[in-house]
Amino acid sequence: MGSARLAGIDIGGTKLYALVTDAEGKILGRAKKKTRPKKGYAAVLERVEACFAEALEAAGVAREAITAVGVGAPSAITPAGVAVDAPNLGWKDAPLARDLEALLGRPVRLDNDCNCGALGELSFGAGRGHASLVGLFVGTGLGGGIVHEGKVLRGHTGLAAELGHLVIRHGGRTCGCGREGCLEAYASKTAMGRRLRRAVEKEGRPTLLTELGVEDLGSLRSGLLARAYREGDALTREVVDEAADYLGAGVASVITALGPEIVVLGGGVMEALGEELLPLVRASARRSTFPDAAFAATPIELGTLGDDAVALGAVALART
Amino acid sequence: MGSARLAGIDIGGTKLYALVTDAEGKILGRAKKKTRPKKGYAAVLERVEACFAEALEAAGVAREAITAVGVGAPSAITPAGVAVDAPNLGWKDAPLARDLEALLGRPVRLDNDCNCGALGELSFGAGRGHASLVGLFVGTGLGGGIVHEGKVLRGHTGLAAELGHLVIRHGGRTCGCGREGCLEAYASKTAMGRRLRRAVEKEGRPTLLTELGVEDLGSLRSGLLARAYREGDALTREVVDEAADYLGAGVASVITALGPEIVVLGGGVMEALGEELLPLVRASARRSTFPDAAFAATPIELGTLGDDAVALGAVALART
Repeated sequence: MGSARLAGIDIGGTKLYALVTDAEGKILGRAKKKTRPKKGYAAVLERVEACFAEALEAAGVAREAITAVGVGAPSAITPAGVAVDAPNLGWKDAPLARDLEALLGRPVRLDNDCNCGALGELSFGAGRGHASLVGLFVGTGLGGGIVHEGKVLRGHTGLAAELGHLVIRHGGRTCGCGREGCLEAYASKTAMGRRLRRAVEKEGRPTLLTELGVEDLGSLRSGLLARAYREGDALTREVVDEAADYLGAGVASVITALGPEIVVLGGGVMEALGEELLPLVRASARRSTFPDAAFAATPIELGTLGDDAVALGAVALART
Repeated sequence: MGSARLAGIDIGGTKLYALVTDAEGKILGRAKKKTRPKKGYAAVLERVEACFAEALEAAGVAREAITAVGVGAPSAITPAGVAVDAPNLGWKDAPLARDLEALLGRPVRLDNDCNCGALGELSFGAGRGHASLVGLFVGTGLGGGIVHEGKVLRGHTGLAAELGHLVIRHGGRTCGCGREGCLEAYASKTAMGRRLRRAVEKEGRPTLLTELGVEDLGSLRSGLLARAYREGDALTREVVDEAADYLGAGVASVITALGPEIVVLGGGVMEALGEELLPLVRASARRSTFPDAAFAATPIELGTLGDDAVALGAVALART
């Protein structure tokens, strides 16, 4: 059998990542596949199994040596392991933990992807050595994860830490979720894209992004956003800086309410533009955190795990 | 010596309350005094001691029978028991726990008043039987307390749960704390008073409140606000209903982020107008909580302990 091994799987809307690690989280093998959610639930699960098998092979580890498989998915997850609603995958009330256990043949521990991301950064990344952490992950949407006293805070329904839907401007912009004034409606890439599109289409403002060949500002890649930002495109700067300002207000609320030991910012937008945005987010958070001493006592840092954050958090979950 | 007895003291900006209870929190005696903060720190502490002595006498309990005294104070409290900043009392960095232990002659457990209020409602009030609770206390200011897995959540600095300073409208109204867009700047009695005053003084709007003899709308008593509201005064309704709407958005953020088993609303304004405001707060919270299932799973209730909430929470703290 050999010594205990763990696995972590990140089921994303676009990609699947699988990692096999030793008991300390050292990566022994990895694999990556496209998710292809349009092929349906069963087909995605088959691809998860294939990705897991590939990572096992890359690691030279037998399936039986895996103590448990942690899995992160972009959905609210019930304590019973049901993926309640995963819009990017088209799943509703999918009994994911049970189905994956049957398919992978190993015990499965399932959680929301951002909960895993936060746990990953705490266990192996920017939050190492801390007992509490709040993670904010800025990409297409804006996800959150809270670790309190070493454990993921899921609330009594398992639905907590949806920090993209904190009310940051009551009565303000409509969010993708249909509510008004959510943080995600101001600080996600989708929010920025909408803002850019309106400025170009309705106000006729110029932007380097159209010169860079972006056709749909609403589904802009983070890399192009970063390029236009770095080249000093005025519209991009205006829109991105405003988003960073709102993100800072969200960070402030989180520190004011929870007093975590550290706040970690991750996700595609922060990976692409983190160095530029971090000072803006900190400045905004400083203005809005109560009291000043709480801001002073709380580092706000970029995540260090990049694309591995969720899968490594899943490994940490498997270890518990 | 007799069996173990506990005490709880609420040091408010205006009044002091002391309770003596049995080990289960049954009240055996009580006392109440004016705080008179203008007389200074040492004089207030003497009044606390006198109030405690009076409660002991009313209960017929010897001081030595008190296992521990819980104390709630309107200040951020450090883990070492220092009251960092109590604007209503005029205290800064006061070593309150140490000084009270010396004065009362019993072990003291000190916490922020709203943390105590939340713990009180969980232990003996509306949240009885629950393991997690968020309390929002609407009075002159707007205070918050969070109990998670049976314990007060204080954050790593001891400064957490300052829910009156959640950013609810980024870039919005200036709060008493100097920041912009805090919940307290929209949903506290002070915020309502400012709004009323502006409408009367700047817009010349009529209100029953002036007929009721209110001279300073900025320091209105809750009872008069409730009377004008119940008598259908249009301006009062408009202002109070808007505050309730913002409070509901704050409740939504708290449920979305933390997923507590119950949210409890207390404080002077809720005691005076709770039955009227609760449906408005719930309706607003329903619109803004993510996801819908989290709202559906979370009762939002009025506190049941009234003026005893903080002192009874202090008793619960003394018991731990």
